[in-house]
Amino acid sequence: MDARLERQLDFIVEIDKLKHVMRQSPLCDGSRKENDAEHSWHLAMMAMILAEHADEPVDVGRVVKMLLIHDIVEIDAGDTFAYDDQGRKDQEEREQKAADRLFNLLPDDQAKDFRALWDEFEEDDTADARFARALDRLQPLTLNYINKGGTWRSKGVTAAKVIERNRPIEDGSAYLWRHAKGLIEDAREKGYIKP
Amino acid sequence: MDARLERQLDFIVEIDKLKHVMRQSPLCDGSRKENDAEHSWHLAMMAMILAEHADEPVDVGRVVKMLLIHDIVEIDAGDTFAYDDQGRKDQEEREQKAADRLFNLLPDDQAKDFRALWDEFEEDDTADARFARALDRLQPLTLNYINKGGTWRSKGVTAAKVIERNRPIEDGSAYLWRHAKGLIEDAREKGYIKP
Repeated sequence: MDARLERQLDFIVEIDKLKHVMRQSPLCDGSRKENDAEHSWHLAMMAMILAEHADEPVDVGRVVKMLLIHDIVEIDAGDTFAYDDQGRKDQEEREQKAADRLFNLLPDDQAKDFRALWDEFEEDDTADARFARALDRLQPLTLNYINKGGTWRSKGVTAAKVIERNRPIEDGSAYLWRHAKGLIEDAREKGYIKP
Repeated sequence: MDARLERQLDFIVEIDKLKHVMRQSPLCDGSRKENDAEHSWHLAMMAMILAEHADEPVDVGRVVKMLLIHDIVEIDAGDTFAYDDQGRKDQEEREQKAADRLFNLLPDDQAKDFRALWDEFEEDDTADARFARALDRLQPLTLNYINKGGTWRSKGVTAAKVIERNRPIEDGSAYLWRHAKGLIEDAREKGYIKP
């Protein structure tokens, strides 16, 4: 096997571990929590379906790729719960280190491309990244709503915190943010979220 | 909420069920079987990484989308094990019916687009579809090899059957097929596959 294919396959085998990284959000039927690989697939599907609602023109193919890779660093860095203020303090450092190791398993040109796409997502400074991040917020919000509270309820999160956490949806799509705010408001009224 | 967004979100919630459709292939660490959502994510990643090995020029973005949706019909039709000759007899009928129901949850224009992409994958008659199918074979082959046999061993599959099942890899990439044949040969020698 040539060295290039070997590096590609090593990466492909290594990222199988993303299927073991558990998130806090429950699946729609509440039977168990979701893992990062499933979450990434779901987000990529949402990008294909909801791209028309982005406020700025986006390249759907790039958004899809960005979402497919955005959580790979969690293989080393672990999932940091959205409302874990302590854990989020060193999150960036842990994730940068993970990106250094993981993407560099790939051949150099691909490592560079993947890293650039991940950096773009993290920096959140382009239309594609803003829309990708909006979906990364909207998806768990949807799962929690369908589960009549999900992690909001189990972790005792307040409505103000949920609004703050999900505000990046507005940076990607005012339309989807109106929808999200409606869900949060409804969740508050129904007692899924603490006032 | 407007009717279009409602249909989009209904579909997005419905496809959460793909996370419950279990395949036969084990994860790389052998701890459990893989589900369709994880599998679809892994394939999409492989398309991004291995597209350069396709024999014909492919549109990577289209291949990625095709792979993200290719198993959605299994929400209704279930996963049909590759070596289950009985189950495969009515597989097409079950999957066509599932496609009719599932994709039509989407707004009409998107339903049509998704269905066309899925039909293209099934018909296996374009460069994008051939390469997508090649990856859909190479991925479980890789998981089984890493698991020292996986479903080949547990189901007692012969080397001739494994070759026959995986030959579509050759239609997408002669280079990846050479690699795959090497894995199968090695697996046979090591006793992971019956001669």
